[in-house]
Amino acid sequence: MMKNRLITPEGTRDTLFEDCIARRKAEQNIKKVFLSRGYSEVVTPGLEFYDVFNSPEHGIPQERMYKLTDLKGRILTVRPDLTMPIARLAATRLKGHTLPFRLFYNQSVYAINPALSGRSDETVQAGIELIGSSTRRTDLEVIATAVEALESCGLADFRLEIGHIGFFNTLIQKLNLSDSDKDEIRALIESKNYPALNDRLDKLENKEVANALKQLPALFGGEEVFDKAKKLLDCPELLETTVYLRSLYKDLQKLGLDGKISLDLGIVTRNDYYTGIVFKGYVQGLGTTALVGGRYDSLLSDYGVDLPAVGFGIDVDAVARVMKSADDAVLPPDVLVFAEEGYEGKALAQVKRLTEMGFRAEFSVFETFEESKKYAAEKGIETVYIVRDDIVEVKA
Amino acid sequence: MMKNRLITPEGTRDTLFEDCIARRKAEQNIKKVFLSRGYSEVVTPGLEFYDVFNSPEHGIPQERMYKLTDLKGRILTVRPDLTMPIARLAATRLKGHTLPFRLFYNQSVYAINPALSGRSDETVQAGIELIGSSTRRTDLEVIATAVEALESCGLADFRLEIGHIGFFNTLIQKLNLSDSDKDEIRALIESKNYPALNDRLDKLENKEVANALKQLPALFGGEEVFDKAKKLLDCPELLETTVYLRSLYKDLQKLGLDGKISLDLGIVTRNDYYTGIVFKGYVQGLGTTALVGGRYDSLLSDYGVDLPAVGFGIDVDAVARVMKSADDAVLPPDVLVFAEEGYEGKALAQVKRLTEMGFRAEFSVFETFEESKKYAAEKGIETVYIVRDDIVEVKA
Repeated sequence: MMKNRLITPEGTRDTLFEDCIARRKAEQNIKKVFLSRGYSEVVTPGLEFYDVFNSPEHGIPQERMYKLTDLKGRILTVRPDLTMPIARLAATRLKGHTLPFRLFYNQSVYAINPALSGRSDETVQAGIELIGSSTRRTDLEVIATAVEALESCGLADFRLEIGHIGFFNTLIQKLNLSDSDKDEIRALIESKNYPALNDRLDKLENKEVANALKQLPALFGGEEVFDKAKKLLDCPELLETTVYLRSLYKDLQKLGLDGKISLDLGIVTRNDYYTGIVFKGYVQGLGTTALVGGRYDSLLSDYGVDLPAVGFGIDVDAVARVMKSADDAVLPPDVLVFAEEGYEGKALAQVKRLTEMGFRAEFSVFETFEESKKYAAEKGIETVYIVRDDIVEVKA
Repeated sequence: MMKNRLITPEGTRDTLFEDCIARRKAEQNIKKVFLSRGYSEVVTPGLEFYDVFNSPEHGIPQERMYKLTDLKGRILTVRPDLTMPIARLAATRLKGHTLPFRLFYNQSVYAINPALSGRSDETVQAGIELIGSSTRRTDLEVIATAVEALESCGLADFRLEIGHIGFFNTLIQKLNLSDSDKDEIRALIESKNYPALNDRLDKLENKEVANALKQLPALFGGEEVFDKAKKLLDCPELLETTVYLRSLYKDLQKLGLDGKISLDLGIVTRNDYYTGIVFKGYVQGLGTTALVGGRYDSLLSDYGVDLPAVGFGIDVDAVARVMKSADDAVLPPDVLVFAEEGYEGKALAQVKRLTEMGFRAEFSVFETFEESKKYAAEKGIETVYIVRDDIVEVKA
């Protein structure tokens, strides 16, 4: 037999039974929040042209994308991101519609991750994009909806950390660095790897910026972070960002989200299309980020329209893993319906009747009552119907 | 701007709003039928090893699969089929579980189609696999469930055509033909292209088999087809198949499916793993096959276990296109909630309250009431709330 016939590719897996139930429940709960707040669903293709994700300013690194070619030799990718296809869709299919657009999605994305990174190559994401508005109210709504979506999954202990990419972007742009150097520093900040970050920053000539970048990953917590780093944050270049984030955070506190939100000025993300607020959701007991979002005001211009936007995506399986509970067990059907020879039609009609009454009823594919009864016992089905001229109920 | 940044690959499309609602409704209805009859959901990866689909006996033609490589150079495919991954899963992950397995799925599949074939390269399929039983009752149940699933979508005018791959397979094996010759004849029978089929068959030396193959595509209708082709069908090699199909059809008629099922002995399918009954669902007003299914008793041995199986898949979007109705319109939200400056938090709390009461409530991202009112009018939102110290309701 072929070597790879019995396994799934690295970073992917089969999802069975209980895990499917938990996933679908998370999806339904999240979707209900989106729908109730005026968002409408869109579905984009699983395969897209490589060009959709390949922009000099906002591209996804080539090495993170699965690539293949179509019959004409054009490069396709297995969808590595959802914000960019939805930006494409909004820029083309929704031209002329009333702004803002409130869109939601629930789809898989695929990314190549380095071996042993522990990341999945295939994840299901549910999220929203609010396109065509850049008011403070838009940011407020999207963050409030993110909290609402996580709450809808019954997660007791989660936290949304909110930052602004302006801090990192403003500082890093002052350094004359290559994209890969910038990305190296970004990754060290993201992982809060202080020793390596300090080593790397010590090599920079601009000591002032280096020191500022060193401070960023430590600036997390409540409103006190603004006072803690007053000298850094109130400098002319960062003042506007500081004032905006502080006022937004105050508004969110007024919403009663106090125990659920905090600040993290060191938030940087792998996606480089963010231009404003950025936020990440963490759930107690989960090794990974459950939610990533932010404002991206220049991405849509890659697709020929100039519209600001903000959105987020939730890692559905991550959330489902935490919310998974005894409720999600696959319960055995209520009834097994066995037909005596010649009564199969009558038995199938009985199955239909039972399902219409709301029962889960299985038709026995076995030709003898003994086999049916044994099967029922193994599966934990408590009631067996024998269908003949009459219908007899037997406890298994 | 890059040439292919604004379009989707051939054979794929964006699905918007009403079409998403129709698709999700079809999925929910079909899923409810599967669940109520004891089936449990599984989800397989979007990317699989090429080897899963590459067997000398049951392989999917290479030219129909999207192929790519992983970081180790192994060939992957973008899932071209669901029966084979689920066979892989059943053979590996479910070893030792009580038989039969009742599994259902709802996933996209990808196939490369020749240009202008009119087929979609990406389709969503919802279906079941009943694995580990080969009784007549199993076939009965799966066909009854197929009818039930189509009915659940409110399709008024559909028909399930039932055949048996044994007719074609037995006849074609008598001819000493290459795989591609066999496939050519198969395709001509499938398309009921009589002139081309007759031309092709006239070239065969074995006139008896050629004549039998010519008859197959005309053998469709009610039980009379068995009498119509008595001489052909009652020959020793086909007798068992004839007797089986006839008895199964009689049982299905007894189920009251008379107007919904018919026979078609000329059913052949692109998937070559079928070994027994095969069936296809057609819906009035649809250019394409809505459902394909059949028995495949030797496929699982490709994955190292010897289990008979039967199942079907429904083309969800095809069904959704037909069931799409005025009900699926995207209705505007019930209320737009506008906050006066400083009352954003109160307004967001009001949105939450409204959604908890079952309303669809949108938070206005506009900073003035005039803009909010204009937006509400454009979107058809009839009620606007102004949130300040009190909350005022205004008809838009």
